[in-house]
Amino acid sequence: MRFNTPVSLTFIAEMIGARLVGDANAMATGINEIHKVEKGDLVFVDHPKYYEKCIQSAASFIIIDKETSFPDGKALLIVKEPFEAYQKIVNFYRPFAPSMQMISETARIGEGTAVLPGTYIGHHVVIGKGCILHANVTIMDHCSIGDNVVIQSGTVIGSDAFYYNKKTDRALYYKKMNSCGRVLIEDAVEIGANCTIDRGVSGDTIIGAGTKIDNLVHIGHDTVIGKNCLLAGQVGIAGATTIEDNVTLWGQVGVSKTLTIGKDATVYAQSGVKDSIAGGKVYFGSPVEDAREKMKERIWIKRIPELWEKVMGKK
Amino acid sequence: MRFNTPVSLTFIAEMIGARLVGDANAMATGINEIHKVEKGDLVFVDHPKYYEKCIQSAASFIIIDKETSFPDGKALLIVKEPFEAYQKIVNFYRPFAPSMQMISETARIGEGTAVLPGTYIGHHVVIGKGCILHANVTIMDHCSIGDNVVIQSGTVIGSDAFYYNKKTDRALYYKKMNSCGRVLIEDAVEIGANCTIDRGVSGDTIIGAGTKIDNLVHIGHDTVIGKNCLLAGQVGIAGATTIEDNVTLWGQVGVSKTLTIGKDATVYAQSGVKDSIAGGKVYFGSPVEDAREKMKERIWIKRIPELWEKVMGKK
Amino acid sequence: MRFNTPVSLTFIAEMIGARLVGDANAMATGINEIHKVEKGDLVFVDHPKYYEKCIQSAASFIIIDKETSFPDGKALLIVKEPFEAYQKIVNFYRPFAPSMQMISETARIGEGTAVLPGTYIGHHVVIGKGCILHANVTIMDHCSIGDNVVIQSGTVIGSDAFYYNKKTDRALYYKKMNSCGRVLIEDAVEIGANCTIDRGVSGDTIIGAGTKIDNLVHIGHDTVIGKNCLLAGQVGIAGATTIEDNVTLWGQVGVSKTLTIGKDATVYAQSGVKDSIAGGKVYFGSPVEDAREKMKERIWIKRIPELWEKVMGKK
Repeated sequence: MRFNTPVSLTFIAEMIGARLVGDANAMATGINEIHKVEKGDLVFVDHPKYYEKCIQSAASFIIIDKETSFPDGKALLIVKEPFEAYQKIVNFYRPFAPSMQMISETARIGEGTAVLPGTYIGHHVVIGKGCILHANVTIMDHCSIGDNVVIQSGTVIGSDAFYYNKKTDRALYYKKMNSCGRVLIEDAVEIGANCTIDRGVSGDTIIGAGTKIDNLVHIGHDTVIGKNCLLAGQVGIAGATTIEDNVTLWGQVGVSKTLTIGKDATVYAQSGVKDSIAGGKVYFGSPVEDAREKMKERIWIKRIPELWEKVMGKK
Repeated sequence: MRFNTPVSLTFIAEMIGARLVGDANAMATGINEIHKVEKGDLVFVDHPKYYEKCIQSAASFIIIDKETSFPDGKALLIVKEPFEAYQKIVNFYRPFAPSMQMISETARIGEGTAVLPGTYIGHHVVIGKGCILHANVTIMDHCSIGDNVVIQSGTVIGSDAFYYNKKTDRALYYKKMNSCGRVLIEDAVEIGANCTIDRGVSGDTIIGAGTKIDNLVHIGHDTVIGKNCLLAGQVGIAGATTIEDNVTLWGQVGVSKTLTIGKDATVYAQSGVKDSIAGGKVYFGSPVEDAREKMKERIWIKRIPELWEKVMGKK
Repeated sequence: MRFNTPVSLTFIAEMIGARLVGDANAMATGINEIHKVEKGDLVFVDHPKYYEKCIQSAASFIIIDKETSFPDGKALLIVKEPFEAYQKIVNFYRPFAPSMQMISETARIGEGTAVLPGTYIGHHVVIGKGCILHANVTIMDHCSIGDNVVIQSGTVIGSDAFYYNKKTDRALYYKKMNSCGRVLIEDAVEIGANCTIDRGVSGDTIIGAGTKIDNLVHIGHDTVIGKNCLLAGQVGIAGATTIEDNVTLWGQVGVSKTLTIGKDATVYAQSGVKDSIAGGKVYFGSPVEDAREKMKERIWIKRIPELWEKVMGKK
């Protein structure tokens, strides 16, 4: 999330009760979780295992629970509970204050766009021209939709990320990471009925121009989908994954988090993608393999009894 | 889609700017895509590979991009872009003009039917007697529901078909085939929560009498489901498929398009049906096989290490 | 379902036209289907195969189609159609009379709870403090939600059980068992978008404190989920199953009915759980096995061609 205007680091330090080590005159331009950081960003880290990764990342200002060395031009904000400090900043800039009208007066809706009854449009949503939002759709705060987009009934755009911090020191130990990111839907995208597209935790979930999505599809937080992809019914894609242009996923395919599916890849129905796969190929299986190899495997399995008889003399 | 009254072919030719070859006095009674054509229908074809199939189909009038020979009693409508011409006719007879009220004044709702709050009922919907439509359901234009039907909350009936024409000559290359078909739900059907049933592209998606459907089930366009079927949670069925009477599909089963599952077949959970399967049997696997054979296969796989040791002398 | 106050057995007998055999002064305290019976309950049985199970169950009063022997302190209610008699009692105490307002005046909503537009809250619903119910959620009659619960848009809590009685003597042969149970959601539970949680048939579907559920998840009737579980996107759990504390189910996992998943178990994505599995372990496959064993199996399958060549002399 980018702040509307840069914010002084001392103001942030005061807000979260941090000891500031580094340039006291620095200005922060945004806050992001580690997968999405840019120069000028605040980020947090609360485990020594990830100190180096965070300090060496693009982020400029590190909310951390211990003083440590850091590169020139960066700064540390030392607090006891970095995660809680991060949440405090997010909640300050994105307080929970939803619209209590079906269509927020702060939403901007383009010319020729039809919004059918029962559809909820949150604060600061931007929708382009010539779109159709069918009945009983939900578009949550800050999401952005291009031109000529069609969204079928019951679909939810901008639900919270499924992203929790495990705290083993307390009875109820999953603590939610508040989502302050958005969903960006580019031009000519079509989305089926009863789909769910989560907002980014701190960055954006993006659906590329011309991509077509069937019914009951789930797309996780911070996932980026390319142009002209086809996602068939009941496909599920976890968080922070990249699907490049022209990828086709057939029905009920599952895709794990933080991986990449290369351009022009096709994945057959019910397959499971657990690691990155190269573009331009056809895949099948759970976990996926080259589709033709996977098909051959089935033939080999059928030959085991014959092999057994030859070797063991009986079935 | 059938026209309310027959339409003169010359009127159609003028609408789409076509050169008419054949009987100028003929009357068209409807328009359908190739899977659903009947005598009196208009159909379109834009690839030489499918010319013969279309010209020899039940359709009487072929919108085509090249003059060719055709049987007596038929006619050609020659245009540069048959797909666009087809869309133009569909849009003329089924213009996008949705109801902006939660319940359209053109809907007909039978005696003793309860419609709970938040439910949207589109134009020209017909609903029988003694039905329950729970809260936040969406029934789209022209759909038809029998008597004693129960639909749980969040379900969408009549969303658009997931059916696109690939146009490789343009940047955004999937062009949607506008759906002008309906969903017909027969008597005593029950449908769970957050299901999606797409309308036919030009024909009807049909759910047979007495069929019971669990939650989060997806049924594609033009699919026909028989009587007294059971579809468990998260089943997905692609377009233009036929499920005969008394079929049971357990949870998360996926069924591909344009195939047939025979009467009284049972398919175990998480299986994938990619080709037609005979009735009266039990299936398992992805792709499905006879369930008992598939179970035996698992035992054979477990024996490979023993076989390896015998042949290779070591594991 | 427990009655508000105990009801005399003679009143019940009269309501359903039953011949009472046993203590005519007894009082019934509730009615339940056989999986959920307690002392004081009415239960029904209509097949000799289950007579003994019902008569020996915790239930005190058996609605049955034939006189038979029974233990002291119990009673029989003899009718021709026990199932219809059961439904009659359920319908008397839980008549279908839904709220026709978006938020029922009989619902109790705690302090600091936000209910966004388009959300339906049925009769006698109880919601705790500090909850967020996003737009277009549906909470049905009698459901109960704790404190600090978050429910994303489009989710349905309290839809009917998918539970039918097969009646082969009639044309439309699945007869629905009317659900009179509830959904109980404990404190600090979070539920994603477009999920569905069915009410119990006669008992309660329970989601334990601190459990986090992603989008498009289906949970069947009477299922009990422990504390601090994680259920990823598109997981489906059938009816009357028990998931113990700290269980993690990854995306698209399917779980069958009436089984138990032990404490601290983890099930990898797209797996299928068809029988009970022990806690503290990691599982994969459909049906599931120990994850590490299942992974090794894949390696063995790849070795079949080598084995074949050695034994058969050619591929």
